Amino acid sequence: MTPRDPGPLRSALDDERLARAAWSRLAEPGDAAAAALVAEVGASTALHGVLDGRGPQRWRSRLEVTDPEADLAAHERLGGRLLVPGDEEWPDGLQDLTPEVGDASSAMTRPFCLWVRGPLPVAETLRRSVSLVGTRAPTAYGSHVAAELGAGLSERGRAVVSGGAFGVDATVHRAALAVGGATVAVLACGVDRAYPAANSALLARLAEEGLVLGEAPPGTSPTRWRFLERNRIIAALSAGTVVVEAAWRSGALSTAERAERMSRVVGAVPGPVTSAASAGCHRLLRERGASLVTGTEDVLDLLGRVGEGAGPGREVERRPFDGLRREELQVAESLPRRRAAGVERIAQDAGLDVDHVHAVLGRLELAGIAVRSGTGYRLGTA
Amino acid sequence: MTPRDPGPLRSALDDERLARAAWSRLAEPGDAAAAALVAEVGASTALHGVLDGRGPQRWRSRLEVTDPEADLAAHERLGGRLLVPGDEEWPDGLQDLTPEVGDASSAMTRPFCLWVRGPLPVAETLRRSVSLVGTRAPTAYGSHVAAELGAGLSERGRAVVSGGAFGVDATVHRAALAVGGATVAVLACGVDRAYPAANSALLARLAEEGLVLGEAPPGTSPTRWRFLERNRIIAALSAGTVVVEAAWRSGALSTAERAERMSRVVGAVPGPVTSAASAGCHRLLRERGASLVTGTEDVLDLLGRVGEGAGPGREVERRPFDGLRREELQVAESLPRRRAAGVERIAQDAGLDVDHVHAVLGRLELAGIAVRSGTGYRLGTA
Repeated sequence: MTPRDPGPLRSALDDERLARAAWSRLAEPGDAAAAALVAEVGASTALHGVLDGRGPQRWRSRLEVTDPEADLAAHERLGGRLLVPGDEEWPDGLQDLTPEVGDASSAMTRPFCLWVRGPLPVAETLRRSVSLVGTRAPTAYGSHVAAELGAGLSERGRAVVSGGAFGVDATVHRAALAVGGATVAVLACGVDRAYPAANSALLARLAEEGLVLGEAPPGTSPTRWRFLERNRIIAALSAGTVVVEAAWRSGALSTAERAERMSRVVGAVPGPVTSAASAGCHRLLRERGASLVTGTEDVLDLLGRVGEGAGPGREVERRPFDGLRREELQVAESLPRRRAAGVERIAQDAGLDVDHVHAVLGRLELAGIAVRSGTGYRLGTA
Repeated sequence: MTPRDPGPLRSALDDERLARAAWSRLAEPGDAAAAALVAEVGASTALHGVLDGRGPQRWRSRLEVTDPEADLAAHERLGGRLLVPGDEEWPDGLQDLTPEVGDASSAMTRPFCLWVRGPLPVAETLRRSVSLVGTRAPTAYGSHVAAELGAGLSERGRAVVSGGAFGVDATVHRAALAVGGATVAVLACGVDRAYPAANSALLARLAEEGLVLGEAPPGTSPTRWRFLERNRIIAALSAGTVVVEAAWRSGALSTAERAERMSRVVGAVPGPVTSAASAGCHRLLRERGASLVTGTEDVLDLLGRVGEGAGPGREVERRPFDGLRREELQVAESLPRRRAAGVERIAQDAGLDVDHVHAVLGRLELAGIAVRSGTGYRLGTA
């Protein structure tokens, strides 16, 4: 095979950043061989190899349509920036993507670069983030929970990562925006594309107030393959992934699975067992060891709260006999509500000896549970 | 202290069965000292001790109202029978109640005896049983699931144990009866009492077609203490306990906790996280390691199905690209739906080399996914 004229790739041959941009076009996400080669020799050197005819021939099939300078210029015209490993903004979480944690169906490769739009600092924003994912067709219940979690986690200072899709994703992004939170959409297509079209206003707003990012160069169309691979990035970017509502088969489960493979925490929100839309969440809880999430506090617990103190905890209704020991409860339950009973009668009802009941009644009287009346006792109103 | 005239206890002094009946009146359920004494020296000898003034004085407080022969006669007039350890009908599960698994709040003692009504053989019925418990005030959802599980498990040959109370308990018993299943109510009061009164028709039917049993002698009133202790028996009698619907605080959770202490399997049915009526189930799932139950099959899985074969499993919708390997999926997704594309174009879209794409297209053609058309290929309709 003869070496090609590098054409528009010429400048990428000695510019790692441009070379990585080129690789994001040449190779599909999750191409383990490409990722390994670039990691081993660097993106520019690897590109030389492709132009020289070395390496798998599949990488040559897109050479003609690969022009990283043009891609970057188009991206920058939209106000976008390109991130590569080593950049200050490059998110830490992506380092946990390693081919070792992959399997035949997904190599869990690191992206060559990230095409980013939006004003927030990427690494810093994602350092305290949680990924919320779910079905494109949620029930009213699923939408409600998605909005609660999106807003609740934002209010607790967590950035909310999702996929920019219909349904749970969009609801999560919108809820975060509504409370002024940081929110990040990870796309399977180019970040210049408004996909799905019905979310174009949302995606535009995310590009202005939050972050829209992905590994695909401008113009890339979404495919099922790219959606699946995109999920590894959603999983990697956050410390935890929560599936809000998902049917038995749902892309959200693949995100959860990838998160689990990277030892990220995985949560799932249960729903009615009569709702097919929750069957995927129940599957994660039953079969995959996901943690059950009932609300924002549970997610924070899951992520591990540091330095927030014990917190108020759940509100627990106090009942009159709470905290009583066994014999106290037995005596308390033997007290008549209206007419007082003598100690012997109370002892008989309680199955305790009279001396003992005297002592217990003393404690119950102090607690306002027993009230002395004549020679006997009755139940207090405390 | 002077020995008492044994009075109506005379015959119990040399009749273990009557002596155990007497102890079920003298001591409250869960009285660890009484249970230990009876286990150690036998019920009759222990009774001698009480009459002689030995042992805790609390056991003497009910001597005057203890007449086991009269109790047994009254019980038999209702068609009841008394079971004691060693009887063929004595259920195996109660052997797992040992003071060692108890703590200060509940001693997990074995009952002295069981007061039983109903035509079913006790031990045999309970050998393939599951306990279904839950709130007295279920939602429509909780009632629906209770009925589904009660009927479903009955149809799969499992006896259904519950507490005869309002709500989930009653629904479970009724559902089992409706499909001709075996169902067992474990009461906190005497089995001669219809408590709650609104369930009296149900309890009467259970006494005629199923089983109604408890450790309390005739006439015993239900108290909160006895309800709590009753729960250890519900937990012990079955291989597994499933909480159908329960609020954050619910007696059903105490049954689950007791089941867990005896290493029984514990399941819980999730519900909407917006429903307070499911908060207890979610608590069990989150904090106590209960298994998530979505239906009858999950309960059977939990109990361990033996010799039932692989079964049909869940219905899983097949999609056209299911089972494709990575490159097959990439090529399949690059196929146009209408006008065929040439192999080079397909290879470019897929990011694969042309030779490879030729080979993959051959496989996809065999699968009906790719269709040859002129010099190119398009997506098949398979």
